[in-house]
Order: sequence, then structure tokens, then C-alpha cells
Amino acid sequence: MTAEHETLGDAHEQAAREQRVTDEVVASFEGAGDARLQHLMQALTRHLHAFAREVRLTTPEWEAAIGFLTRAGHITDDRRQEFILLSDVLGLSMLTVGMNAPASASATESTVFGPFFLENSPEIPRGGDMGEGVKGMPCHVRGRVTGVDGAPIAGARVEVWGADEDGFYDVQYVGDVVQARAHLFTDANGEYDFWTVQPAAYPIPHDGPVGDLLAATNRSVMRPAHIHFMVEAEGFETLITHIFVAGDEWLGDDAVFGVKQSLILDFERHEPGEAPGRRVDEPWSSTTFDIVLAPTGA
Amino acid sequence: MTAEHETLGDAHEQAAREQRVTDEVVASFEGAGDARLQHLMQALTRHLHAFAREVRLTTPEWEAAIGFLTRAGHITDDRRQEFILLSDVLGLSMLTVGMNAPASASATESTVFGPFFLENSPEIPRGGDMGEGVKGMPCHVRGRVTGVDGAPIAGARVEVWGADEDGFYDVQYVGDVVQARAHLFTDANGEYDFWTVQPAAYPIPHDGPVGDLLAATNRSVMRPAHIHFMVEAEGFETLITHIFVAGDEWLGDDAVFGVKQSLILDFERHEPGEAPGRRVDEPWSSTTFDIVLAPTGA
Ligand SMILES: [Fe+2]
Ligand SMILES: [Fe+2]
Repeated sequence: MTAEHETLGDAHEQAAREQRVTDEVVASFEGAGDARLQHLMQALTRHLHAFAREVRLTTPEWEAAIGFLTRAGHITDDRRQEFILLSDVLGLSMLTVGMNAPASASATESTVFGPFFLENSPEIPRGGDMGEGVKGMPCHVRGRVTGVDGAPIAGARVEVWGADEDGFYDVQYVGDVVQARAHLFTDANGEYDFWTVQPAAYPIPHDGPVGDLLAATNRSVMRPAHIHFMVEAEGFETLITHIFVAGDEWLGDDAVFGVKQSLILDFERHEPGEAPGRRVDEPWSSTTFDIVLAPTGA
Repeated sequence: MTAEHETLGDAHEQAAREQRVTDEVVASFEGAGDARLQHLMQALTRHLHAFAREVRLTTPEWEAAIGFLTRAGHITDDRRQEFILLSDVLGLSMLTVGMNAPASASATESTVFGPFFLENSPEIPRGGDMGEGVKGMPCHVRGRVTGVDGAPIAGARVEVWGADEDGFYDVQYVGDVVQARAHLFTDANGEYDFWTVQPAAYPIPHDGPVGDLLAATNRSVMRPAHIHFMVEAEGFETLITHIFVAGDEWLGDDAVFGVKQSLILDFERHEPGEAPGRRVDEPWSSTTFDIVLAPTGA
């Protein structure tokens, strides 16, 4: 070992030694039966090591990273997903969305899934109200689901979830309340409509390690007001997106980088009175969101 | 949006769009007050995005990654650390060790910390036995702690932990048993010695997501037999290392890439009879590990 030790101070030899660690780990994945998994793990190893080498990661920083991931894991449960939040604030979610967007030029754009989706939302009929018992101004949303050729898609499943006027989702309240989330199906003309509450800008959950990270880096925790959509129909790519409210002050500074111009809609404000399918005795709003799905495999 | 949409299929425009996501996230960290944290987060963003873009990460793969991290978080507790294990099997731990090794050519080499360290180990006297009640052949370890100038270091804290002959650490057993771990202090001559059990090769804990990853990629879960050391003394860099047993069949295929030639020691086997400080009525082994600490900040 003497010869090797004598060159320890040599930057070139140090770089070679570090490269050997990377090479050894990359080689360890050579025998993976699944070629895609092998490629993923080898690329992950190379990029992870390149990061650590570029910043000259220290032992306390490595320990801090282990601690961060541990806290993220422990705060995550059925109703809180800190790892999605982490992916979101690092822009990995939007990058992944952007890489997997349908190649069809005229399809509706995607955005982040977010951490607040729940399986098994209640079904509501056309014109139904998923805002019952939810704090906020009544808001009517209607639209039509079509293919890129403009042909209506009947029976498309439209899944919708949103926050109340205080910016909280049901899953953020104590107890197992399910509200401001539902799914419904388009009619023979591809049309859908439902009632909810006007969405409000909100801070992402910031009482965990992701919030600590944003605070430590002086980043905003706010998201502009939006309603989540997931639209599924046989023969079409599933669309995961939001609609944003024009004029929201956070549109230019979304904590999760989710805003796309084409997804910003006008929400019209109305005085109390007749409204679609009902009389409303308080101010209400409405918007129209027509959805274009890309064909599968396009 | 029409102009932009019309070029959606264009690879160059797609690359530019992806780069804009990365640029936006990197810019979001510009205001971090702490320059080092800003550098870390910006570099992490760039390398993470470069990884995702190189492999063209799919949505199901992103979901699998979120699920993997979630499972790792949920299996992690006071006595199980899946994130360290992940860092270990990806070689990040050894890379970090290698980057932070003391620059002193003649100091003892470092290796991975591993996931099995516990705070507050019991103190034993010189020649004490941390192997009491532990399955395995008695093993005597002695050595001398010095600086690079050869001067003995008195009062150095030598922390030691190891597995039993079945390859299990105390923390892997049900209950709160603490065994095969201890600390002691060097005497005026810098010398230490203790009894433990002969270490055995063992599989890293593989009933969690890291084990699933190794199985999916056909990687070995085995570590060659070793004993962990952490040596602390005022005025010297803390040394975290192992000693490995010469001849072990896994020395060339350590699941966590921790083997260094200089850390492989001969463990001599003895017949029953007189042994250091005691009579042993079964076969026993012994080894000598002299430790050289680098001065702080060298
Ligand atoms: Fe949201
Ligand atoms: Fe170990």
C-alpha cells in the first residue's frame, strides 16, 4: 500500500480512486436480468456519484441527508406523502410530467399529480355537488371531453379534487372526512359538469422536512389556486392536470413549478340567483374546461 | 400556444422545454441565504434532472421510486436504518468515506459506518469481554493507537461492534438486548484489548425494499466477516472503519463495497488453553489491529 499511500494527496490519483468506486457499483448491476432496471440503476449510480463528487459531500451533509429521508418517511402515511412533495419542490415531478406528455400537439397539457389524491372517491351524478359541507364560494365547472379530432368521448371518467377556501384538502383535517373530491362520467355528448367550491391559493404542507428545506432556502411554500383533474377513457392516454384561476397572485411563483399557461382559466363571478341546475343565494363562480385527450400510444 | 404546440414533436424544442424546468428550479434556490446549501440544492437539482432526462423516466417508474422511498421510510426505526443501507448498496457511503478520508498518507483507512451503530454502548475495561452471551468462537483483539508520528495516544475512545456467528447484530434480535458492542479507552501506552466473538460473514437486512432491489438486480446481499471500529481522541480525526478477516469468501464481493486491502487482517486460530487474561476451554482466535489516527484538520 505504500506506493498508493504516497500519492494520496494527489488530486489525479484521488479522482481515479473515486471513479473506481463508481465503476465498481455500476459493474455490480451488470447482472440484472431486466435491461431497463439495469440501465436505471447504473444511470442513477453515475448521476448520484457525480453529484456527491461535484459538491465534495461531507460526512455531516451525508448524515443530514439520511436524517431528512428518515423524517420524510416517518411523516408519510395514507394521507400524507412527503416524498411526492419532495419530488414536487425539486421539479422532478414536473420534469417527469413533461417527458411523458402525450406527443399530440392539441391535447390538453398535464401537470403534477400532487400528494393529495385518494383512491375510491365518491361518484357524483352530472351536475352533482362535491362541495357540500366545504367552506368556500360555490363554483360551477363544466366542459366537454373530446379526442384530438374533436369527437366527443362518452363515459370518460372525470376525477376531481380540490382544497377549501382555507386552502386545505380533506386529508389535512383530523379524522377520515372525504370531501371536495369526487368522480363522474361524461354523457353521450362528452359533457360533464359539477359543483364544488372556488379554489384558494394554499401553502403546501410545510410542517415536515420539505417545509424545513423550503424555509432554509427562503423559498415560497405557496401554490396558486387550482382544481385537480384526472381524466380516463378507454383508448386514450390518462390525463393528470389542474385548472388554475386567472389573476391568482402565485401563478408566477408556484412552489411545485406546476403552472402552464394553457391551464389558466377565467373563473367568472356571479351575483346570487339562478345558476346551472339550482338557485344560489350567495355569490358564486363558474368556469368552462374543455378537455382534449390524446389517443393511447400517440 | 399554437406555435409552441406545433413544434411539440420536435426533439430540440422538447429538450429546451425540459431544460427550462431545470433552470426554473435551479433559479428558485438563488435566494437561499446559506451559500453552501444553495450550492448543494442547485447541484442536486441538476444531477437529479440529468438522471431523469437521460433515462427518460416514465410515470410508473417515478411512482415506483416514490413507493420505494415510502417503504424504506416505514421500515426504518431506532434499530433499522434502510436509508443508510440504500446509500451503502449504491456505493454512496463508500464514496463519501473516500472523499472525506484524512489526507494523511499513513493514517488507518476508513470504511462505511453501516446501519448497526447504536449510541450509548456499555463501557468495558481493558481486556473486558463484549462477547458474553453471544454465539461464536471467542476472539481476542488487541492493538495500539498512535498518531502518524508513532506516538501512543492515551485515553482514545475505541468503540467496537460486531455480529454473532449467525451474522446477526443485537439490534436484529427481538427485544432490546445490547451485546457484541462496547467501548473502552486506551491505556498510557495507547494500548487496548478486548474479547468478542469471531465475526462471521452475513447478509445485510434484505427483507425490505433494499433487499428487493438487490434481488431484482441479481446482486449478492453478503458482507465479508468484519468488526466495526470507531476511534475518537482529542486532536485527531475520528476514524470509522472495520477490520476484515483474511480468507473470507466474500472479500471480493461485498454488498456495500466496503473492503480495503489494508483493513484485511489475519485472525489466528488457537487450541483451548491459556489466553490473554484468561483460560479458554474451547478453540479461540486472536488478531492485532494497530490504529494510526490523522491529526485534526490535516
Ligand atoms: Fe393541489
Ligand atoms: Fe457490519
